[in-house]
Amino acid sequence: MRQTMRGAVLYGPGDVRFEELEAPRIVEPTDAVIRMSATCVCGSDPPVTQPTPMGHEYCGIVEEVGRAVRSVKPGQFVVGSFATSDNTCPNCRYGYQSSCRHREFMTRAQAPALRVPLADGTLVPTPDVPSDDLLPSLLTTSDVLGTGWFAADAANVEPGSTVVVVGDGAVGLLGVLSAREMKAERIIAMSRHEKRQTLAREFGATDIVTERGDEGAARIKDLTNGVGADAVLECVGTQEAMTQAIRCTRPGGSVGYVGVPHGVALDGQEIFFAHVRLHGGPAPVRRFLPELIDSVWTRRINPGKVFDLVLPLEQVAEGYRAMDERRAIKTLLRP
Amino acid sequence: MRQTMRGAVLYGPGDVRFEELEAPRIVEPTDAVIRMSATCVCGSDPPVTQPTPMGHEYCGIVEEVGRAVRSVKPGQFVVGSFATSDNTCPNCRYGYQSSCRHREFMTRAQAPALRVPLADGTLVPTPDVPSDDLLPSLLTTSDVLGTGWFAADAANVEPGSTVVVVGDGAVGLLGVLSAREMKAERIIAMSRHEKRQTLAREFGATDIVTERGDEGAARIKDLTNGVGADAVLECVGTQEAMTQAIRCTRPGGSVGYVGVPHGVALDGQEIFFAHVRLHGGPAPVRRFLPELIDSVWTRRINPGKVFDLVLPLEQVAEGYRAMDERRAIKTLLRP
Repeated sequence: MRQTMRGAVLYGPGDVRFEELEAPRIVEPTDAVIRMSATCVCGSDPPVTQPTPMGHEYCGIVEEVGRAVRSVKPGQFVVGSFATSDNTCPNCRYGYQSSCRHREFMTRAQAPALRVPLADGTLVPTPDVPSDDLLPSLLTTSDVLGTGWFAADAANVEPGSTVVVVGDGAVGLLGVLSAREMKAERIIAMSRHEKRQTLAREFGATDIVTERGDEGAARIKDLTNGVGADAVLECVGTQEAMTQAIRCTRPGGSVGYVGVPHGVALDGQEIFFAHVRLHGGPAPVRRFLPELIDSVWTRRINPGKVFDLVLPLEQVAEGYRAMDERRAIKTLLRP
Repeated sequence: MRQTMRGAVLYGPGDVRFEELEAPRIVEPTDAVIRMSATCVCGSDPPVTQPTPMGHEYCGIVEEVGRAVRSVKPGQFVVGSFATSDNTCPNCRYGYQSSCRHREFMTRAQAPALRVPLADGTLVPTPDVPSDDLLPSLLTTSDVLGTGWFAADAANVEPGSTVVVVGDGAVGLLGVLSAREMKAERIIAMSRHEKRQTLAREFGATDIVTERGDEGAARIKDLTNGVGADAVLECVGTQEAMTQAIRCTRPGGSVGYVGVPHGVALDGQEIFFAHVRLHGGPAPVRRFLPELIDSVWTRRINPGKVFDLVLPLEQVAEGYRAMDERRAIKTLLRP
């Protein structure tokens, strides 16, 4: 077995390096080690204070499992959530696996191999080893599709709903796709970026609004007979986006928010008098994985289209730059 | 008809006077004027900058209606919401009558007579003129019971739920009663006031927790096998109470908040990682009035027990003082 490998390490803002790391191995009997088939760059990678191995979206072939692992075995292709879960604790049983009592947030996935703790509760195998063209879409189920799906779920999208999506990154675009899968009648994507508008329409958006902030909210009111939307997906995580989302929602409607709200504060009186419902957090991807993998496997959906840049893993730094500069929606990395 | 009457006017903090006011009359064709049978003092009366006639909870006999009023007529006993509503606009049809496009927040109810705008959409008649002993409970449906009910509704209480109620004022106590009516299995009232604890138990509380803040939240975790409550009713409106409510809730559980959150700010990251659902606002009492009036009329519930002080209307100032000093839970006023 390999002893070392090369993977992505973040040293500071914009300083991603590809360098030698220790190869993963089984540490706990509940671990699995997978050989990475595809990984990618995420917009939500955190500020760091020391060199930090990066990446939390992954799919690949199981190489080895600990002696306690029962549900996956070497040779299987698996997808796992960005948050590990035992899938048995009370929070998991309520469907909040990303609040599992034994949760760890994954990192180190931008590498050729990865140790996955709590393999039984975290990984889901596909029916077979997939053909290469399915890899991008399967990879999205690990986080970005599962997160867009949770935004729609948390916003209580249902058949006939009028939905607004704030944010035209990969999560927002897959929020559009999720709302369409949940049979929303009207899906309004808020975007001023032509390429993303096109993909939003392809994923099911019925309207595009380019205005932002209070102007954007006023435009949504115009489009909904003065009422506001039933469901608003907040897929950014800034104060401006959250405020915009709340102001687009009708009384009794819901905001599902999945962008990590660093430094965001909600005004109690505003949300009180707005009568909105709020729900969100780190997406419990594990809850949705079986259904989403099935939708990809049967080629009912093609969420992998959000990857508009594919690079070899060693060019990870360029993958980050392209996303920072909004040249790419999302970068897929092939080891 | 009378030209003047005497009612309560708030001049500033703690300065309530009983003085001459113009008697109400029909102004719009959609108005009704009612003769007050009972009114009361509310904990949420606002700070004022000029002398302001007070009171927004009311029930009584219709004296006169405008020419457009169809659903109530002189001689009927009626209860209305503290917020007027046309009950036909989109927000009303979604069940958010307290966000009606033509909403006015009522005032001037601490008086012998009251003009009620939008009478058809605001007032609900009882089957007959009630006997005197039903007046306190019928009066609660106008606000304080409807508000406790909305807290439970917004917190998604359902059969079998584990519920926590933050706040032992009249709204919190009637939140306990509401949760019991919704068949919650366990209802934990947070209170350190003996008389209120007793009433909470009478209304259906199964447990009492006297700790507050993080200590209170830790106690709730202890009582729920480390999980937290399914539904938490926040019936205070302070930063401390809201934070306590959020920290008592399990991931995926709900906080229903009905205390006006003056100066309250919610930390985006805290609610994100807590995975809580939040919903609240001014209670859409009109949605619940028919059901709640029926429960009172058939003597299934006795929410009027929250009135532990009954005074003649002219002693309204003493009614406020008794509540400020926590000598009374809630003061009923008889004109």
